[in-house]
Amino acid sequence: MTGMLTIAGLGPGDEGLVTPEVSAALADATDIVGYAPYVGRVAPRAGLVLHPSDNRQELQRATDAMRLAAEGRRVVVVSSGDPGVFAMASAVFEALETSPQWQDVAIRILPGVTAMLAAAARAGAPLGHDFCAINLSDNLKPWPVIEKRLRLAAEADFAIALYNPRSASRPEGFARALDILKEAGCGDRITIFARAVTTADERIEALPLRDARPEMADMRTLVIVGNSATRRIGRWIYAPRRAS
Amino acid sequence: MTGMLTIAGLGPGDEGLVTPEVSAALADATDIVGYAPYVGRVAPRAGLVLHPSDNRQELQRATDAMRLAAEGRRVVVVSSGDPGVFAMASAVFEALETSPQWQDVAIRILPGVTAMLAAAARAGAPLGHDFCAINLSDNLKPWPVIEKRLRLAAEADFAIALYNPRSASRPEGFARALDILKEAGCGDRITIFARAVTTADERIEALPLRDARPEMADMRTLVIVGNSATRRIGRWIYAPRRAS
Repeated sequence: MTGMLTIAGLGPGDEGLVTPEVSAALADATDIVGYAPYVGRVAPRAGLVLHPSDNRQELQRATDAMRLAAEGRRVVVVSSGDPGVFAMASAVFEALETSPQWQDVAIRILPGVTAMLAAAARAGAPLGHDFCAINLSDNLKPWPVIEKRLRLAAEADFAIALYNPRSASRPEGFARALDILKEAGCGDRITIFARAVTTADERIEALPLRDARPEMADMRTLVIVGNSATRRIGRWIYAPRRAS
Repeated sequence: MTGMLTIAGLGPGDEGLVTPEVSAALADATDIVGYAPYVGRVAPRAGLVLHPSDNRQELQRATDAMRLAAEGRRVVVVSSGDPGVFAMASAVFEALETSPQWQDVAIRILPGVTAMLAAAARAGAPLGHDFCAINLSDNLKPWPVIEKRLRLAAEADFAIALYNPRSASRPEGFARALDILKEAGCGDRITIFARAVTTADERIEALPLRDARPEMADMRTLVIVGNSATRRIGRWIYAPRRAS
């Protein structure tokens, strides 16, 4: 049996957003590895071994997955959204660099609909003009780097998608991010809070950045700060294609 | 019959990347509207009217689609990739603003796998850390805005996804973009040229930015310029999760 390590994106939550190639990989897998809530999205079946793990265990999880694949198993590492955006793909390559014995394991990456695309679709088209995506988690990134990127993103007039805005363990980061964007002149910008997009818990709110409160976000929320030209038309929010 | 305007993303090309909800919308449609090559990806069937149109006809196409939906048709406007990223969703809302008679048309947007996610998956994980997406088309955006954004994106150390890098009618823009990024100190950055990703014509190349030549890109190419920490491991290119 030839092993294979597949790193797959499950999309934001709705089964209708799981791509057929990801569904086929799950159907063919012997082992599913990932953060427990994502592994929980895969239907159990005879012959399929589930390996749920805790958050912040990315490197161990990646190493475990490579060992299984090297043993000949067909392993799927599951991420929410897209595996290449603030998710497991980078962690697998980091683990591969420190584990040269697994250089020959066959790897493939199957993209998915990342949260900002699903959130944007629900709100309208706030990513229809140039934009950036910033992970507000400072587990692996010094906070000054995040601050600098927020200021430059504001100056560039990008729409800004903020991933992992707020956790119980470090609630102050998102409040500071909002303050930085206000100081950078973004108070008027329409800001979208998209929580648990495409799930039964979905909630979409939009308001000017200056009225946004930190507690409007949690770790299931994706925040999109519009650019200076982002507008409302009826219930929709969109970025015009022309630069302002 | 109640009309509906659905704006759907077909993904980058492979049928295995068309989401089930998009496939269902296409199966239920009475009319498909879009740029001819994208309409050509929808299988004809009895009762389905195809409305292919030329490139740069976005506003007329959006207006036509709204009129059909207002008449009670189930219209799907198709984009490649994701409809909200440099595609038809913003054009539909622009048309809606100028056509208040259609404010009550039911609209929904179905996200898709945008080109940069598919390109990143083929190359490794170059979007695993903070990144931005810039449309190099200057049809609707003054070139100085593009230049400013490129400089700020380099300063922010974002990975940079460049959409629509080069067309026959304005080949000089992409050459200038490469020069700006070199001047901004990005010469060492690993740069990925991903052409026709997930199709039979797919070609992925990667090299340091300083060695990139403008003619390596055409309008079917998505370019990703890595950040300063982007690395190679074997055949893979990825952005580590830690900031450099």
